[in-house]
Amino acid sequence: MSSSYGRYHSQSQSYAPSAPEQPPYSNYHHTSASNASSNYHYGNVSSSSFPPGTPQDVIRSFQMVDRDGSGFIDERELQQALSSGFHHFNLRTIRLLMFLFKNPHQPLTIGPKEFAALWSCLGHWRGIFERYDKDKSGKIDPLELRDALYGIGYAVPGSVLQLLLSKYGDGSGRRVELGFDSFVECGMIIKGLTDKFKEKDTRYTGSATLSYDAFMTMVLPFLVPYD
Amino acid sequence: MSSSYGRYHSQSQSYAPSAPEQPPYSNYHHTSASNASSNYHYGNVSSSSFPPGTPQDVIRSFQMVDRDGSGFIDERELQQALSSGFHHFNLRTIRLLMFLFKNPHQPLTIGPKEFAALWSCLGHWRGIFERYDKDKSGKIDPLELRDALYGIGYAVPGSVLQLLLSKYGDGSGRRVELGFDSFVECGMIIKGLTDKFKEKDTRYTGSATLSYDAFMTMVLPFLVPYD
Repeated sequence: MSSSYGRYHSQSQSYAPSAPEQPPYSNYHHTSASNASSNYHYGNVSSSSFPPGTPQDVIRSFQMVDRDGSGFIDERELQQALSSGFHHFNLRTIRLLMFLFKNPHQPLTIGPKEFAALWSCLGHWRGIFERYDKDKSGKIDPLELRDALYGIGYAVPGSVLQLLLSKYGDGSGRRVELGFDSFVECGMIIKGLTDKFKEKDTRYTGSATLSYDAFMTMVLPFLVPYD
Repeated sequence: MSSSYGRYHSQSQSYAPSAPEQPPYSNYHHTSASNASSNYHYGNVSSSSFPPGTPQDVIRSFQMVDRDGSGFIDERELQQALSSGFHHFNLRTIRLLMFLFKNPHQPLTIGPKEFAALWSCLGHWRGIFERYDKDKSGKIDPLELRDALYGIGYAVPGSVLQLLLSKYGDGSGRRVELGFDSFVECGMIIKGLTDKFKEKDTRYTGSATLSYDAFMTMVLPFLVPYD
């Protein structure tokens, strides 16, 4: 596969996921969070700390886990908050999400604005997952993954996808299928690395010149060796 | 820290680990493998498949786990073989080692030549670990890691090392210390990424121009998300 402009991305000059066909919030899987009263404040973080228009269930999910009312949630609390709205995410995916969504100047915690942005993004990925899980198996297979990434503007070379998917195999040789949390992780890795690369490709040529320091700083956060 | 030639690496024009002060094999921790008869062939792989001068205990470690005598060992067998000679390595580190040492044209298995090279490299890392574990705690702390990497020619920016070490923390904020297998994993990640970057920096300037495809292909193998 060539590395020409066309291979680099499949749409107009944007790496960002295209706007979903429906608002992302409609793809939420609501559980107990939606039953709580919208006027009850679990913690000290008021609704006004969230961006205007943030749905109540998003605010409640944050407040329910921010038990000390500090206005920031750590990785365990984020894991809990997302499990109520979406899906259980393993800690490795949680840490990746925290890295990608945290305020650059804060330690590894998430505040209301970051949480709202993360939730919106996950709703978007949920929509993509459901749209490309053509056989409705609840899993994304390699072909569906390739189509999903391409559909949102990431033209990932087949060999690169193969590499990525091989990380999720169990070594038995069986075809790899991704549940929602692994799909999110794959998507975030592809999106995260591509976006960082794009920042360095200011003339949009499909190539970038990187110093050694910049290269290592870009890449290492995506190495998440957690037991 | 600047990204000048001096920052890029600390020694003469070589990224490779410097020659150890003593032969790497003398740093092996021998256990049961050294007690077996040197004339007994556990499998079909003869000594002649190994590079000339490969120590007998290395050959025996390979043969002991290559039970089907195929001449190739998979990740579980490699894990077992290395545990006998060195240390228990978690599967994630084993997979990284297999990726770095396997024959580029083979599936993810290791033959005699690759095994001998891997064992030699681990012996080298064992020597480095023991040399820089100044307080003999059996763990490498952040300062010792920085010195160890610098001592073998990798001038890794402090911020990059911080990033890397944060992956091994347990979230408690306690200072991270690395056991031998985590130390090997860190070292291999730094070495692997740096060597790949160096291949693209043909004029040895400290910068490289990468296509998007090449960038993704270089980086993804180091993302090892195993549960």
